[in-house]
Amino acid sequence: MASVGGDNARGAELLRATQAEVAEGIDALFDQLLAVPADPRGPLYEAMRYAAIAGGKRLRPLLVRAAGDLFHVDRALTLRVGAAVEAMHVYSLIHDDLPCMDDDDMRRGKPTTHKAFGEATAVLAGDSLHALAFEWLCDPATSADPFVRAELCCELARAAGPAGMAGGQMMDLAAETSDFDLPTVTRLQQLKTGALIAFSVEAGAILARIPAEGRRPLRGYARDIGLAFQIADDIMDVEGDEALAGKALHKDEAAGKATFVTLMGLDRARDQATLLVEQAIAHLGGFGDEAALLRAIARYVVERDR
Amino acid sequence: MASVGGDNARGAELLRATQAEVAEGIDALFDQLLAVPADPRGPLYEAMRYAAIAGGKRLRPLLVRAAGDLFHVDRALTLRVGAAVEAMHVYSLIHDDLPCMDDDDMRRGKPTTHKAFGEATAVLAGDSLHALAFEWLCDPATSADPFVRAELCCELARAAGPAGMAGGQMMDLAAETSDFDLPTVTRLQQLKTGALIAFSVEAGAILARIPAEGRRPLRGYARDIGLAFQIADDIMDVEGDEALAGKALHKDEAAGKATFVTLMGLDRARDQATLLVEQAIAHLGGFGDEAALLRAIARYVVERDR
Repeated sequence: MASVGGDNARGAELLRATQAEVAEGIDALFDQLLAVPADPRGPLYEAMRYAAIAGGKRLRPLLVRAAGDLFHVDRALTLRVGAAVEAMHVYSLIHDDLPCMDDDDMRRGKPTTHKAFGEATAVLAGDSLHALAFEWLCDPATSADPFVRAELCCELARAAGPAGMAGGQMMDLAAETSDFDLPTVTRLQQLKTGALIAFSVEAGAILARIPAEGRRPLRGYARDIGLAFQIADDIMDVEGDEALAGKALHKDEAAGKATFVTLMGLDRARDQATLLVEQAIAHLGGFGDEAALLRAIARYVVERDR
Repeated sequence: MASVGGDNARGAELLRATQAEVAEGIDALFDQLLAVPADPRGPLYEAMRYAAIAGGKRLRPLLVRAAGDLFHVDRALTLRVGAAVEAMHVYSLIHDDLPCMDDDDMRRGKPTTHKAFGEATAVLAGDSLHALAFEWLCDPATSADPFVRAELCCELARAAGPAGMAGGQMMDLAAETSDFDLPTVTRLQQLKTGALIAFSVEAGAILARIPAEGRRPLRGYARDIGLAFQIADDIMDVEGDEALAGKALHKDEAAGKATFVTLMGLDRARDQATLLVEQAIAHLGGFGDEAALLRAIARYVVERDR
């Protein structure tokens, strides 16, 4: 147990260092890729920069990096793919915050994009980041191998579309007026947040040309941490501190929405999250020390806001 | 001259027949690709079908088909790429019609998507079609060659993003409060409608693996018909019949927006459109009869609503 505790402490230190490095790299890349043009599109780029730079925990780019490290993928490439997946994530946050959707005023501790730039610019900033994610992925700078570029685009499109993130958000809107059971809420979250998390993990393996069969343990890992992440989010919505979270909480409760917490209760939800983290780590049994970062991330997703 | 008139008549007949065939093919493909799932995402798919099926002139799929015909590309493949580009076009119409954008109630003779399904579902239907366009393009069913799939995704992403359609829409919003000159309005339209029209034409050549240099005449053709199309649109906004157009007209005038018509006057705008059509056809000088459809489309873009 002392050795496991020591491993955990080393993992947490590795996570802290890598997260800082990835966050810095993503900001630098966004700064370069989103340079503001000297024409009437200026506010569009300013809005994208406002939403994308210096925000969030960069969990998805961190997962691309951690999965790429398993196969010794060039870190400049995992960072580039990380920027694409983060652009996709930021676009979804901008659109989800709109008045016609979740109607949120605060995000990451500052006014949401439509509050700062107006609704029209926010819609277009989201649309632009959505397209840019694909533009960056399929650029030869991401991979000299066109098969890798096409595969990345295809998987990202699936994760973002109606069978992924957008479909999950649609179910989430329906949740306010329906009584969803546990399997339906699980499915909702697998689409809404799970699909993009799974893409992030698989992308590292795609960059290394690992075929679909070889990615199975990573898919299992991603599925489990995706659900654990969402359960932790639901717990935070009930127990969290708004100042720390940087956004409005207790929204599910107010909307009368079924969540993992309302369906399972706080204690069982906490146990379930812990179990999922253990299960996620068990999927990595075939890997050695090179998976230390993925293991640390799994522990982190349920502890991130305590 | 009798022979040119005869060519034009044959071209118009070819156009009518091909347009009907392509429109039917696109509807059948959308019907299949947008099958409604038996889960809470149902309304999302209904909204996509409402906006995408049985609507519009299918100019962009027609251009993919016409350009593909130059190089004997399998028509099932040009139809598939046509569905992707039309999905991208329909998504842009849904978002442009939103209350925070152009705030339009009617489109293609029926209530706009947000009027029929609510704003949240409309935003998500647009987002979903945006992602699906990439998913369909980079599927192996589009081309067995991953280079072709990656190239198509890359070009479509550029045409849709902030240096294309989304950037053009941003400029269009700025046009309401700025005094744009003719070069700026030209640039605006090249981004807003020109980029996707250019993609449609180039896609036919990409499917045939024609390298970028070899696509130069097609790019010239596309640039000219794109502008001619928009000048015709501005003329229609002044002179058109709302019932025939299926949407609100005289909106630019009401918004005090600079257009080709306000900047050039009706007569010069008409002359310019005719000149652009002739120029577009001149770009096709290196092709024979196989370009008859592209020539007929060039004539059609300035005559479509008379």
